[in-house]
Amino acid sequence: MLIVHKYGGTSVGDVERIENVANRVAKVRDAGDHIVVVVSAMSGETNKLIEYAEYFTNEPAKKEMDMLLSSGERVTAALLSIALQAKGYDAVAMTGRGAGIITDDTHTYARIESIDPTAMQEAIKEGKIVIVAGFQGVNKDGSITTLGRGGSDLSAVALAGALKANKCEIYSDVDGIYTTDPRIEPNAKKLERISYDEMLELSSLGAKVLQSRSVELAKKLHVKLYAKSSFSDNEGTLITQENENMEEVLVSGVVLDKNQARVSLRGVLDRPGIAAEIFTRLADAHINVDMIIQNVGMDGSTNLGFTVPQSEHQHAKKMMETFEHDIQGVDFDENVCKVSVVGVGMKSHSGVAATAFRVLADSNINIQMISTSEIKVSMVIDEKYGELAIRALHEAYELDK
Amino acid sequence: MLIVHKYGGTSVGDVERIENVANRVAKVRDAGDHIVVVVSAMSGETNKLIEYAEYFTNEPAKKEMDMLLSSGERVTAALLSIALQAKGYDAVAMTGRGAGIITDDTHTYARIESIDPTAMQEAIKEGKIVIVAGFQGVNKDGSITTLGRGGSDLSAVALAGALKANKCEIYSDVDGIYTTDPRIEPNAKKLERISYDEMLELSSLGAKVLQSRSVELAKKLHVKLYAKSSFSDNEGTLITQENENMEEVLVSGVVLDKNQARVSLRGVLDRPGIAAEIFTRLADAHINVDMIIQNVGMDGSTNLGFTVPQSEHQHAKKMMETFEHDIQGVDFDENVCKVSVVGVGMKSHSGVAATAFRVLADSNINIQMISTSEIKVSMVIDEKYGELAIRALHEAYELDK
Repeated sequence: MLIVHKYGGTSVGDVERIENVANRVAKVRDAGDHIVVVVSAMSGETNKLIEYAEYFTNEPAKKEMDMLLSSGERVTAALLSIALQAKGYDAVAMTGRGAGIITDDTHTYARIESIDPTAMQEAIKEGKIVIVAGFQGVNKDGSITTLGRGGSDLSAVALAGALKANKCEIYSDVDGIYTTDPRIEPNAKKLERISYDEMLELSSLGAKVLQSRSVELAKKLHVKLYAKSSFSDNEGTLITQENENMEEVLVSGVVLDKNQARVSLRGVLDRPGIAAEIFTRLADAHINVDMIIQNVGMDGSTNLGFTVPQSEHQHAKKMMETFEHDIQGVDFDENVCKVSVVGVGMKSHSGVAATAFRVLADSNINIQMISTSEIKVSMVIDEKYGELAIRALHEAYELDK
Repeated sequence: MLIVHKYGGTSVGDVERIENVANRVAKVRDAGDHIVVVVSAMSGETNKLIEYAEYFTNEPAKKEMDMLLSSGERVTAALLSIALQAKGYDAVAMTGRGAGIITDDTHTYARIESIDPTAMQEAIKEGKIVIVAGFQGVNKDGSITTLGRGGSDLSAVALAGALKANKCEIYSDVDGIYTTDPRIEPNAKKLERISYDEMLELSSLGAKVLQSRSVELAKKLHVKLYAKSSFSDNEGTLITQENENMEEVLVSGVVLDKNQARVSLRGVLDRPGIAAEIFTRLADAHINVDMIIQNVGMDGSTNLGFTVPQSEHQHAKKMMETFEHDIQGVDFDENVCKVSVVGVGMKSHSGVAATAFRVLADSNINIQMISTSEIKVSMVIDEKYGELAIRALHEAYELDK
C-alpha cells in the first residue's frame, strides 16, 4: 500500500514534535507500507517571514515572497528526513521542484499544472521514505512558486493523485470533522465519514483542518482523504465519494459564520444588466460576495440582498452609494451571522429546510435571508443569536446521537 | 562599473540592518553603477538550524543538511530584494541555482565548478539590482549543495570573477584587516592594502573577516577584493596582487594563534617512511597538523615536532602511543601558542626573522619551535607570553606608525 501523510504547522512546531511525526511515519513503514510525507513550515515561521517582508512594504513582490515563504517547508522536510535517518530509516527530502511539481505563473497563489512523479517513484522503489516540502512548486521557467495559504494540503492531495496512493491522511491538531464547532456545542460529535461536497459546504468548520481547494482536488482525483490528529491515535474522519449509506444521514453538520455583513438594496431600478453591473463592480474591487438573493416585490420593484465579510462592509457601502440613481434605498447590517445546515441526505429527503425554519421560529429568531443549495440551507440571522441557533439545530437534527 | 557586494550575517542580522544594507546598495545604483549583492543568512539562523538537526543526530545526512542550511540565505536575498523594491529600485532575488552556480557533488563542502552568468547578465542589462543567496549552488543532478562555512564569501568572489566585476566588496562588522588583533594591541593599525598571500598567512587574523578559500579564489581569478564594514563608511582594506609598493613594507602584520598544542617525538627510529606513516595516520584521523619541524641530532637520532589544535591534543597523544616501538620518547604541551610575523617584504629584505628572534629574546621568551615560509616566520612559545610577544613584535616592526 502507498500512503501519503501531510503534517501541518502545529504538528511539526518544534523538534520534539518532528520526532513524534518521525515515529508515526516509521510505524507505517514498519508495517510494510510505502509512504510519502508532505510537511508544512514549523508553526509561526511563515507568519514571521511575512512580518519581516511587511516591515519594508505592504505589497512585497510576489516572486520574492515565494522565494521567501518556500524556505519554511524545506527546513521541515530536511529535519524530518534527518530524524528518520537517525532512527535508521532510509529517507530522502525533496523540494517541490525535486518532487516534480510544475505550476502556472501565478506567484503566491499558483495552480498545480502537472506532476512528474518519476523521482518520487524511484525513491519509493528503493524502499525510501519520501519527504516533500509542501506548499511549493516551480513554474515552467524554473522559478519557485507557492500555492497559497494551506497549500501543503493541496500538495499532499496532488501527490497522492499523481502517485495513485491508496489514501491521503491530513494531520493537524484537530482529530477530524465535527458535526459543529465543539466550542459552541459541547455535544458535537466527530463524523466517521463525510462526502467531498459536504466537506466543501462545511468549509468554515473545516478551514482549520482542511483547505477547500484540496477537497475539490481530492474529489476530482478520487483521492481518499482522512482528517486526523498527529497528537492522538483516533480514527479521524474519512472524506470520500458520496454513497448510499451517506444518504441515510439527513444532516452531517451545522456551521456558524460570524464574519458576515448584510447589504440590502430596496427598489432596484428595473433596467437590464443592473445586477450584473453591481456584482462586477464588487468583484473588481475584490469584495467577496457570499450569499445573494433577489426577489420581485408585489409592486414590481426588485429587492436585492447579499452578504460580504465584515472587514469589507465599509468598502461595499461606499461602492453602493455610487448607484444612488438606480436604487431607492440601501440597508446595511454588520451585526448578522450565517448559520448553515449541511447534508447530502437533503437530496433525497424533503423537510430538512422546513425543520430549520421551524427550529429558529421556536427560538424566536427572525430569519433575514435564506439561500439554499442541493445539500445546504443557509440562513442570515441577528449575530447575537448565532450560538443559540447552532445548538438548537444541532439538537433538532439529533447530531449528538 | 560593475560592483559585487557581499554582506555577512551580522550585517543582515535583522530587518533594520537589511534596510541599512538596502540603502548602501541603493547608493551604488544611484551613482550609476551596476551591482550584484551576495547575502548570508541572518546571524544566528544557520546555528539555529544546525542545532535543530543535531537534536536528532550528531551526523545528519549531508544532502539533507544542504537543503536545510541553504534556506537561510534565500530568506535574506528575498527580503533585501523586497526592501529595495519598496524604495523604488528594480531588484531581483536569485537562489544559487538561479544565479547559475554549478558545483561538484560534495554536499556541505562543495566546490564551485562553473557559473553560467546569463540570467544575472540579462537582469543587469535591464538595469536591475541582482541579489543572490550566498553559500549555495546545485550539482549536475540539480540537488542543492552548500559551500561550507563562510561560503558566501566564496559565492561573491566566484560571481565577481564570472561577471568580470570591477571589484568585490566583502562587508562584515569589522572595517578591514589590522596589523594585529586590536584587543591585544590597541595601537593596531588598519592596513590600506595587503597582498593575497599575506592575507592567506594572516588567516587567523582575518578568519572572521574573510574566508581563506575566497582569498585563494580571488587571487586565481584576479578579483580586486575589499574588506569593509557595513556599519561605517571607512575605506576598508584592499586585498590585491603584490606590487612593488608593497615590498617596501617589511612586515604587514603579526598574529597570535592560541589554539595550539605541541607534540615532540624524541629519537624517532631511523626507518624509511616513518614520518610519512605518522602523518598519514594523523590525517586519516582528521587531526589537523599545523607546523611540522624535524631535525637530526648530534648522535644521528631524529627529533620530530608538530602542532595540532588543542581540542585534538588528546586524540593525537593516544595515536602516538601506538608508535611506542618506533619512538624513544614523546613530549606533549598544551600550554603553547604560535606567534607569526607576515610580510611580502621578507622576500627582498633579510633580517626580518632575526629581528623576531631578538625581540623575543629581549623579553626573555623562550622559542620552542620555529618554522618559516617565504613571507612568514612562525614561532611556538609558552602560551602565557603570547600577548606580550605580539605587542613587542608590533612595536619592533613599527606597525603602529
